[in-house]
Amino acid sequence: MKSINFQNHLITSTPNAMEKVFTEFKPSTEGQKLRKEFVEKHTNKKIELLDGPNTVNTPETFKGNIENYIGITQVPTGIVGPLKVNGQHANGEFFIPLATTEGALVASYHRGTQAITRSGGVHCVVSKTRIGRAPGFRFNTTSEAQEFAMFALNANGAIDQILAEKSRFAKLVNIEPNIIGNILILLFEYTTGDAAGQNMVTICTDAICKYLIHASKIKPKKFYIESNLAGDKKPTAKNVTSARGRRVIAEATITKEVVKSILKSTPEDIVDYYELANIASIHAGAMGAQGHYANGLAALFLATGNDVACVSESFTGINLFQVTDNGDLYVSVNIPNFVAGTVGGGTSCPTQSESLDIMNCKGSGNADKFAEIAAGLILAGELSISAAISAGHFTNAHQSFGRK
Amino acid sequence: MKSINFQNHLITSTPNAMEKVFTEFKPSTEGQKLRKEFVEKHTNKKIELLDGPNTVNTPETFKGNIENYIGITQVPTGIVGPLKVNGQHANGEFFIPLATTEGALVASYHRGTQAITRSGGVHCVVSKTRIGRAPGFRFNTTSEAQEFAMFALNANGAIDQILAEKSRFAKLVNIEPNIIGNILILLFEYTTGDAAGQNMVTICTDAICKYLIHASKIKPKKFYIESNLAGDKKPTAKNVTSARGRRVIAEATITKEVVKSILKSTPEDIVDYYELANIASIHAGAMGAQGHYANGLAALFLATGNDVACVSESFTGINLFQVTDNGDLYVSVNIPNFVAGTVGGGTSCPTQSESLDIMNCKGSGNADKFAEIAAGLILAGELSISAAISAGHFTNAHQSFGRK
Amino acid sequence: MKSINFQNHLITSTPNAMEKVFTEFKPSTEGQKLRKEFVEKHTNKKIELLDGPNTVNTPETFKGNIENYIGITQVPTGIVGPLKVNGQHANGEFFIPLATTEGALVASYHRGTQAITRSGGVHCVVSKTRIGRAPGFRFNTTSEAQEFAMFALNANGAIDQILAEKSRFAKLVNIEPNIIGNILILLFEYTTGDAAGQNMVTICTDAICKYLIHASKIKPKKFYIESNLAGDKKPTAKNVTSARGRRVIAEATITKEVVKSILKSTPEDIVDYYELANIASIHAGAMGAQGHYANGLAALFLATGNDVACVSESFTGINLFQVTDNGDLYVSVNIPNFVAGTVGGGTSCPTQSESLDIMNCKGSGNADKFAEIAAGLILAGELSISAAISAGHFTNAHQSFGRK
Amino acid sequence: MKSINFQNHLITSTPNAMEKVFTEFKPSTEGQKLRKEFVEKHTNKKIELLDGPNTVNTPETFKGNIENYIGITQVPTGIVGPLKVNGQHANGEFFIPLATTEGALVASYHRGTQAITRSGGVHCVVSKTRIGRAPGFRFNTTSEAQEFAMFALNANGAIDQILAEKSRFAKLVNIEPNIIGNILILLFEYTTGDAAGQNMVTICTDAICKYLIHASKIKPKKFYIESNLAGDKKPTAKNVTSARGRRVIAEATITKEVVKSILKSTPEDIVDYYELANIASIHAGAMGAQGHYANGLAALFLATGNDVACVSESFTGINLFQVTDNGDLYVSVNIPNFVAGTVGGGTSCPTQSESLDIMNCKGSGNADKFAEIAAGLILAGELSISAAISAGHFTNAHQSFGRK
Repeated sequence: MKSINFQNHLITSTPNAMEKVFTEFKPSTEGQKLRKEFVEKHTNKKIELLDGPNTVNTPETFKGNIENYIGITQVPTGIVGPLKVNGQHANGEFFIPLATTEGALVASYHRGTQAITRSGGVHCVVSKTRIGRAPGFRFNTTSEAQEFAMFALNANGAIDQILAEKSRFAKLVNIEPNIIGNILILLFEYTTGDAAGQNMVTICTDAICKYLIHASKIKPKKFYIESNLAGDKKPTAKNVTSARGRRVIAEATITKEVVKSILKSTPEDIVDYYELANIASIHAGAMGAQGHYANGLAALFLATGNDVACVSESFTGINLFQVTDNGDLYVSVNIPNFVAGTVGGGTSCPTQSESLDIMNCKGSGNADKFAEIAAGLILAGELSISAAISAGHFTNAHQSFGRK
Repeated sequence: MKSINFQNHLITSTPNAMEKVFTEFKPSTEGQKLRKEFVEKHTNKKIELLDGPNTVNTPETFKGNIENYIGITQVPTGIVGPLKVNGQHANGEFFIPLATTEGALVASYHRGTQAITRSGGVHCVVSKTRIGRAPGFRFNTTSEAQEFAMFALNANGAIDQILAEKSRFAKLVNIEPNIIGNILILLFEYTTGDAAGQNMVTICTDAICKYLIHASKIKPKKFYIESNLAGDKKPTAKNVTSARGRRVIAEATITKEVVKSILKSTPEDIVDYYELANIASIHAGAMGAQGHYANGLAALFLATGNDVACVSESFTGINLFQVTDNGDLYVSVNIPNFVAGTVGGGTSCPTQSESLDIMNCKGSGNADKFAEIAAGLILAGELSISAAISAGHFTNAHQSFGRK
Repeated sequence: MKSINFQNHLITSTPNAMEKVFTEFKPSTEGQKLRKEFVEKHTNKKIELLDGPNTVNTPETFKGNIENYIGITQVPTGIVGPLKVNGQHANGEFFIPLATTEGALVASYHRGTQAITRSGGVHCVVSKTRIGRAPGFRFNTTSEAQEFAMFALNANGAIDQILAEKSRFAKLVNIEPNIIGNILILLFEYTTGDAAGQNMVTICTDAICKYLIHASKIKPKKFYIESNLAGDKKPTAKNVTSARGRRVIAEATITKEVVKSILKSTPEDIVDYYELANIASIHAGAMGAQGHYANGLAALFLATGNDVACVSESFTGINLFQVTDNGDLYVSVNIPNFVAGTVGGGTSCPTQSESLDIMNCKGSGNADKFAEIAAGLILAGELSISAAISAGHFTNAHQSFGRK
Repeated sequence: MKSINFQNHLITSTPNAMEKVFTEFKPSTEGQKLRKEFVEKHTNKKIELLDGPNTVNTPETFKGNIENYIGITQVPTGIVGPLKVNGQHANGEFFIPLATTEGALVASYHRGTQAITRSGGVHCVVSKTRIGRAPGFRFNTTSEAQEFAMFALNANGAIDQILAEKSRFAKLVNIEPNIIGNILILLFEYTTGDAAGQNMVTICTDAICKYLIHASKIKPKKFYIESNLAGDKKPTAKNVTSARGRRVIAEATITKEVVKSILKSTPEDIVDYYELANIASIHAGAMGAQGHYANGLAALFLATGNDVACVSESFTGINLFQVTDNGDLYVSVNIPNFVAGTVGGGTSCPTQSESLDIMNCKGSGNADKFAEIAAGLILAGELSISAAISAGHFTNAHQSFGRK
């Protein structure tokens, strides 16, 4: 126990005399053992499966990914494809691993990939990339807020120097002042290479703000590193109409024969369904208008070590379905807030890294490619569910796959 | 291969001559082997870690949870607690497993649980329970839509009989007609016992609608089992102001001493921060106003076999922070759309079931209890992040935990 | 000046020595004279046109409508029609006065009425009627809020008695408790006969709440007559998906010949335009999806003495445009929050009353009829603008009418 | 009748044999007479008050403001002030005319102005000015949409020349491409001098787009001058977080003595009320969070010949209420979409022009000044209503003023 570092905000005891079991946050075999015994004793439950055999049975592997480590949750994983992608960064046929416990999900997305690939593939494009951090400042008056904002907007030189010290990857692309009375919210927007980048932009923005506060004649009364405007872990209308993470578009034309043979519907029926679906989305006060982007994103994020909590911001978007002049089906998905990457977070965990590798998306240089494949996947899912609902097969599919 | 059932919507070949590898959706050892070989051959990648040793190495275990099974994604899991909950269904101290690959998450929630437990616990209540399915119908005119809606609202006897046949758990609590021109959307709202219940309500609603269409004099021109109004896998303002899943409230009073010693902030500073945070949420066009409900929900849903895609609908809510007359901190989280359960989906998968068991929430009779514990967890997370931001420690915490 | 009543919240002097000119709020000839002289002296401007000849040159006419009376604003008024309405309350051909200073508005709505009338008229229906007041209460805990809410929900007898004393017209149709932590918001929803009814429901709700606070064992710490939830003078997603004022639907089928001859477009072009327009509304984060309900509502409210500020809540809604099996144009407007009436407010002012009379909508018994005519008018306006945009005539129309 | 110009889209007869009464849209004495007789005959109603004596009894005065002229709607008008404004463009004490038929409105705003002026005035600032038009284009693919957008973004030279021909006032400040699948929406944002400017930007944008379509190699399949994204006559989240018209901020510190003596409340009570009011706004899914901006805006727009329909886009915003270190009340209103001006529309109509003149805001060079005075007025109204509700006087005020 000597090796355990006590950090100043840790808990050393609790009302019911919990011991030092929870004082070491970093994953270690010793810590896991102590913790397991403690929890087993206090709950009268056995922890066996979480602590069962696994691929990499050394908790230290997960340093930086977990605290209070107790074991491993095992999530069954399926694979769909090949998905033919004609993108700017992704080109070729891809097999995509999806981790989920929801029956019918993989089958549905797989069906969509088949329809796409047989129709020649999906065209994908990343149209904008940026990730923000939005610190809040309090001043006495609007004028003070304006003056500080002006100071920040003119501090490029100093800011560049700070960024150069803090990160090799973060590039600042925009500072947007939002003034509401005597409150100033500065939205700092960056690109962060192949990482989703939330931690990187926190660290950079914190350093910039500390410099600004130090150097400005006007001092804020209060400073908060995040005001809730950035939309971290929750969608905002502001981000939906702009971009957070990558703004990705995918489009495909599915021939009427493939709509018939694979999707068991017709282009006209799908388009007709979506006119109603959009009206329902508007009436209900949805953000965007789509079917289930969240399903594909959650399964893909989980399989690849991306942050599944970010599904709460990445799920928004807009579908287009149109009948072409030839009577085929044009379909497009538009994902304004794709917050995921190929480095950082859980992307280097063992199985997660392998899943990225199956798509040739492991590590640096692959985030745009990964985003394009993901957009193609989401399109596959929207195709499949819309076809199923328009043709009346949705219920049966869930009845046969989703029940034990 | 003889035993493989060909289902009529499966793919038997693809443009690049994919064989029958993907024709059997149900998980099996034989299927996994064929699929692995096929993907390895076409991608030139090795699938080793996904297919490595694990607790329950029989794909069949995951029947109903996955198709195109290829292996297991391993997610590190930490544990937080004890969290003292004083609820209507949950009473006592709980240890809560959280599966995530995002460093600092577990540490932050753990810190919140300590502040709560030392202050006497969190009071939780499930104030409303319902899950909906919202089929859409097309008619020629508003009058026809009204007439059909009226017929549906008066069909209780027949509907009860259908429900009795289709499900032991689903109880219909409301039918709400939404008419927009010649479109009718009937929102059927149910309780579904201890399951999240989306499949159950699909099957029941489909049967009811087929009966209504058969029995009504006025026939719809089109019928779709879901219009996108129900808010499945995406939040809607309608559900946020009403309820989907469970509407859960948690509240606690954290003494100023505990705010100081554990959370390293003061009640006044946290309240002051949240006034600004709410303004930012309003300005950005957020749904609700909170910090990161999605983090705790995603990690909990993942650990317990609930559908992580449902984080996209469950993440909304409203925080309250107030300084009490005694100078302590009153805090409340309000989660209108908690869509999760203790049976169904992945809740019976091996490690997931064990995690539910650690909280004494395994199986039937535990969904309300589970929702109350979850709400207490979310409150812990909001406490911790608000304190960190208000006191300027947020960046440091992420710097020390979140980087490898 | 002796006759002037000093009210305790009036101003008797100002920093620049303003005299008793503003101390009498009720309109009177003497007050107007004093006020005019005072303002002319302090601004060095002449007030002549506001105080010029008018139909009813006695300020006292406007008692209850204005304070600090200084004269009359004159708004040019046009008339459109006949509009053939086939409603439940409005049946026949109507001429509708519209007051506006915006060129092209009347011409555009008139064109729409002609297309409707030539196609056999517009079918209108009021599907729901209710107006709310939403007082807020503070308690110590959620439990207290729940207990008070329960008490309110069970106080029917006493509430009925209070209502009977306070108003002949207000009928309470629903009490909906909204609990957020220790805050309780009770939404009281009424019908208010032929008045828009905001004042009526304020007075009734205030009396009910005072009774509840007096009679309940649990006392709120604070009580506010309005929490901002009711949506008075601002739209809310809650009201858009439900109803405030009257929820009104209008629908019409415009023959393809009339679309061509009068609207200079085709059903297909209009429908095609609206697919794009709905996508744009969703992308921009609009409430509902429509073109310019606000134009017709503002001009109608102004002409008829309804509250033009209520355009800010009444403007929302959803359009449907479809090509029928015959190739004609089906169009529907759906107005969830039509907040206007035929008694109360400015409806009895001289010219305003006359305008209501032209539509046979003057006074009691006419609010539903008026709402149906209004919905028909709104449909006319949506037809006209959609046709103009789809056919590329919108700019020319504004160029010829809207410039001096 | 010979002088009447037949325009090609006018109606020359109707199913019930309506004569040429409605064929001349431009206001004229002869047209009014014919129209009046026709309507009187068909409705059996007398039109006397609308056609009664008025300040300027020549319909031709209203050319460009009205079609199908039938008479004048007379709206009682009160005056409030003096309001001390310390702005960048407005400096001094102003008396503000407000036209309304809603009792209590003028009294309430007047009270607010007194509190402000006695506390030293309101500080106002116009932080951003722009008005948009958002044409929609259809292409075959996303790539085509991107290529056309790129062409537009690089066409500055040609665009400048077109603008120079079309308008002396419109300056293009931004072109923002929004691509959703194969749909392109180009948001053109301008400043338009002292006019609200909607017609001006329509004409300019139409000319630019026609040039772009002509000059671009890639041709759109369809072009619509407005897609509904600009937010003309309806608010959008996009405009709320950005700007439409003028983004205006007003702030004031009201001494605790004045809060007590004039507003009959305390700074603490008002701040406490607003914490609850913001929670209610968030829960209800409002846009922004404020009390009744629409009331002041509607009465001011009406008095000054601005477009009252634009209240539907101008009403949004956010209030701040804080207790200062001295125990006084800091208050701020933030109006992101103030769409009004001092030239164009009805601003030159007789009484309307006089009302602008009373504020020294008549004609060119005054739009920023007018916006600042308006923001001060809105702040007065928010102060007054919040004080009344926080102190429990709201109901009484409406009972004494608002009933005949």
